[in-house]
Amino acid sequence: MPPKAVRKLHQHEETTVPDRITEIIEELAIANRILGHEGVIDAFGHVSIRHPDDPKRYLLSGSRSPLFVEPDDILEYTLESEPVKPPPGQQYSERVIHGEIYKARSDVMAVCHHHAPAVMPFAITGKSIVPVFHVGGAIGAEIPFWDQYDEFGETNLLVVKPEEGRSLARALGGNSVVLMKRHGATVVGASLRELVSRSIYLCWNADYQLRASLIGTPQPLHPGEITLAGAINVKTTAATRTWEYWSLRLRAAGFWPPVRTKAKPARAKSRAATKKSGAGKKKRRR
Amino acid sequence: MPPKAVRKLHQHEETTVPDRITEIIEELAIANRILGHEGVIDAFGHVSIRHPDDPKRYLLSGSRSPLFVEPDDILEYTLESEPVKPPPGQQYSERVIHGEIYKARSDVMAVCHHHAPAVMPFAITGKSIVPVFHVGGAIGAEIPFWDQYDEFGETNLLVVKPEEGRSLARALGGNSVVLMKRHGATVVGASLRELVSRSIYLCWNADYQLRASLIGTPQPLHPGEITLAGAINVKTTAATRTWEYWSLRLRAAGFWPPVRTKAKPARAKSRAATKKSGAGKKKRRR
Amino acid sequence: MPPKAVRKLHQHEETTVPDRITEIIEELAIANRILGHEGVIDAFGHVSIRHPDDPKRYLLSGSRSPLFVEPDDILEYTLESEPVKPPPGQQYSERVIHGEIYKARSDVMAVCHHHAPAVMPFAITGKSIVPVFHVGGAIGAEIPFWDQYDEFGETNLLVVKPEEGRSLARALGGNSVVLMKRHGATVVGASLRELVSRSIYLCWNADYQLRASLIGTPQPLHPGEITLAGAINVKTTAATRTWEYWSLRLRAAGFWPPVRTKAKPARAKSRAATKKSGAGKKKRRR
Amino acid sequence: MPPKAVRKLHQHEETTVPDRITEIIEELAIANRILGHEGVIDAFGHVSIRHPDDPKRYLLSGSRSPLFVEPDDILEYTLESEPVKPPPGQQYSERVIHGEIYKARSDVMAVCHHHAPAVMPFAITGKSIVPVFHVGGAIGAEIPFWDQYDEFGETNLLVVKPEEGRSLARALGGNSVVLMKRHGATVVGASLRELVSRSIYLCWNADYQLRASLIGTPQPLHPGEITLAGAINVKTTAATRTWEYWSLRLRAAGFWPPVRTKAKPARAKSRAATKKSGAGKKKRRR
Repeated sequence: MPPKAVRKLHQHEETTVPDRITEIIEELAIANRILGHEGVIDAFGHVSIRHPDDPKRYLLSGSRSPLFVEPDDILEYTLESEPVKPPPGQQYSERVIHGEIYKARSDVMAVCHHHAPAVMPFAITGKSIVPVFHVGGAIGAEIPFWDQYDEFGETNLLVVKPEEGRSLARALGGNSVVLMKRHGATVVGASLRELVSRSIYLCWNADYQLRASLIGTPQPLHPGEITLAGAINVKTTAATRTWEYWSLRLRAAGFWPPVRTKAKPARAKSRAATKKSGAGKKKRRR
Repeated sequence: MPPKAVRKLHQHEETTVPDRITEIIEELAIANRILGHEGVIDAFGHVSIRHPDDPKRYLLSGSRSPLFVEPDDILEYTLESEPVKPPPGQQYSERVIHGEIYKARSDVMAVCHHHAPAVMPFAITGKSIVPVFHVGGAIGAEIPFWDQYDEFGETNLLVVKPEEGRSLARALGGNSVVLMKRHGATVVGASLRELVSRSIYLCWNADYQLRASLIGTPQPLHPGEITLAGAINVKTTAATRTWEYWSLRLRAAGFWPPVRTKAKPARAKSRAATKKSGAGKKKRRR
Repeated sequence: MPPKAVRKLHQHEETTVPDRITEIIEELAIANRILGHEGVIDAFGHVSIRHPDDPKRYLLSGSRSPLFVEPDDILEYTLESEPVKPPPGQQYSERVIHGEIYKARSDVMAVCHHHAPAVMPFAITGKSIVPVFHVGGAIGAEIPFWDQYDEFGETNLLVVKPEEGRSLARALGGNSVVLMKRHGATVVGASLRELVSRSIYLCWNADYQLRASLIGTPQPLHPGEITLAGAINVKTTAATRTWEYWSLRLRAAGFWPPVRTKAKPARAKSRAATKKSGAGKKKRRR
Repeated sequence: MPPKAVRKLHQHEETTVPDRITEIIEELAIANRILGHEGVIDAFGHVSIRHPDDPKRYLLSGSRSPLFVEPDDILEYTLESEPVKPPPGQQYSERVIHGEIYKARSDVMAVCHHHAPAVMPFAITGKSIVPVFHVGGAIGAEIPFWDQYDEFGETNLLVVKPEEGRSLARALGGNSVVLMKRHGATVVGASLRELVSRSIYLCWNADYQLRASLIGTPQPLHPGEITLAGAINVKTTAATRTWEYWSLRLRAAGFWPPVRTKAKPARAKSRAATKKSGAGKKKRRR
């Protein structure tokens, strides 16, 4: 039964033929909430995916804390981080982080920017986070640092200018995570679920490493172990299990997102399909 | 939808024309509960605002733990920390902290006194808290210390005499936070929301700084970064997002305050308006 | 309104003339649950009060984790720690801790034995806990250590023999807390509420002291401050506020105890009164 | 009343004559969830018991996070870790840990593999966990280390091959716990309840030891104390109390498992009995 249950978890049960983009947007809302619920993101931080039908677009919520993001909050952006349609409300000021990374890394399908408590001691001291347990292999062999001050001098440390986003993307390079001095971290993934998993286990790894360093010398994974263990989270069994686990915890805590009611960020074709089924859902939602 | 939702969050949905003072008192109750819910205040600690219509008065709950403060608990005080009307129950013994700071600092519109676990290691050792991440910039470049013993010798460490409050206000000076040795902290803000945000991020900053110091040397923000990043929390986007976040978390946890039923601390004009709408609310509340 | 609300909190709302012993037993159940809920006691640990009508008896739950103790679980014991009536189920094996302390200390009206995570590092290393903040003054100037091994050699470390209890009581002396090496702590109070408050703030103080020692040298209260601040928790305002706070948190979490249905441990006179009102309550409970 | 309540806790209230295997499977589901709920296991990790009627078989959930394991998820395995019947879904990849330990240790009736945050600093640094408080005596005098790299070189650190499981079982030897470098821990018990208790108190012991080492030198139990205190958790009073405590906490948090509906892993005789009562339960479950 697990696989079916899991599939059901990110579908709205009543709809019989949900269009693909609606499903993806609802999964993005769930991912936002999981990262808010599992202690990675608090009031600030954001999570995006590359548009599944157009690699030159990405989907990102309007300005709202991820724990409370709803499918209706998701907006569509160009890679210049301009909203495709006039946004109904405020936008994240740091969205260039997403646009510039999608431009620089065609392999990246999802991006998360956060200031998780677990990583902050490293971002503040410049000490490196290294994988110290098998699941932590997901963060990769090297996590580079980026200091906004080095290139841009004294700022409010928010990454708001395209050139700041580009500089951060350069520092990320081909890695999976970049630590931002006196600020936080940015994590990328080849899929939304890989991103969620990597973001969460980055925190656990950082916490284990910090506490381990209080009683001895943390022993990092051997190089080959990083590569091999780094693939665990994207294997079907593990990926299914973690997604179900975080989803059921989110649901049990009462934070499951409402379903989508409008066709805001969807492309032409899917928009029509959504509109129809959207009407019925609008009522249920109220 | 966010801005509307947020506005709704601190209104009682049924009332069509709420008077301003009622709204402000309800927001103060919410702020009390947010600070109780987010780990800043436990059984002890208190939160006040300067009276919006009379800078020579302030609003503060009667003796009750902030997590459970109701609008009806809010009392009106003179800057001598005398209740304007005979209080129905017990009062906070340390209310001079509020009165004396409002006297000394005309720019201060809100005050919070607390003993948050995150700041206690600093209050106990005399080590300085410095801003170590962008949002922590809100605490300012310098957090002075105050030791009641220096001027008043051995006491129970409660700030109950006007001269003790005045001494604390002098130590605070023009800063945003003062640490009280072997006691806790007092935080001020130019608005209630700035105060809430600063109080919460002071704790996060202190926690990050402490844990960072376990693995290396925490690197504080550059001076210009403190000024620039210190303004993030009062920018509309950030202020709206954090207030919504903490409010929705409070509501989800079941700690949303009841609405106001009586006109206790309001001034003449608004009292009348409140009384009328108050009747209907009284029933709903039971 | 607070005082009334608080009084109501530990009454069963329907009864009009509750007898005193029933009220006291219900308050003991609440105290058990508060200490279970606030992180002082987990599966093990226990809380007793001296019998209000007979200083040669004490009231203590049968073998059950404090978070789930019900008024019906409370048994009456002689100071030899023998149950006055045959107990319906299992008993705490360490109840001599209570009996022997009540014998040795006529001023003690309530006893709590626990293994709170916050105090364990001190019980394990033999480092002293000292009051480091005003509310922590409640623990007193000196917390002695007791090591069962010193007098009794290798045991399972449970305090089960009368002579073990007596030895512990001697180590406690005239103090308010005794730390038990490789085991936990025992706390006493002149009232149940003082005991609850002291037990909780002992933990906070220990946690603050430990974390403070990671960044510097914790500065304990001055001798006179300990005496003066140690009295804060028993002042009416503070005692009312903390009891309301912990009670409302307990209730909000869904752990409020059911009311009493039987007259088990009560003395002759009160037993009759209870029986009558008990019948009605029995139904409500199911 | 406790013993009865506790017995009721792991029965489905409606059934009058539950067969033994159904009860055991439901208790295994509860044990899974308790370990998930008490912070021992997160998304990964697993818990098994030896089949009560056939020492050459064991019972283990299909691939699912323990906090959400249902009786219907429990599968029956040979000691070669092959499912007795074709499994309906995915299986844990590391089940050889269970099979190989059951083969090597005829006294072991239950096995838990986990990566609890509390033990990770030790698994990462190679520092030994030693019993530092009486209840921690349950972990035994010695906890050996195992490093998959020593025998198998660079792997993804998952224990998936029979020879890897055998190597781990050899490292465990006659002990109760083995720490796995850069991975986690495996715990065994002479009964399911002993296993649950030992797994939980291993974590508390590790946490206390780590924090104690920050302020001084943790003093381990004396050798005879380990033996004597190690038996506390399996004494009737303690075992009853902890199981009730963790069960009631699980139930209060809303994570109590549904009852069994199918006869999947049961042996011939009990299968028939289950099928009958299962029909009615199936409806209730939906």
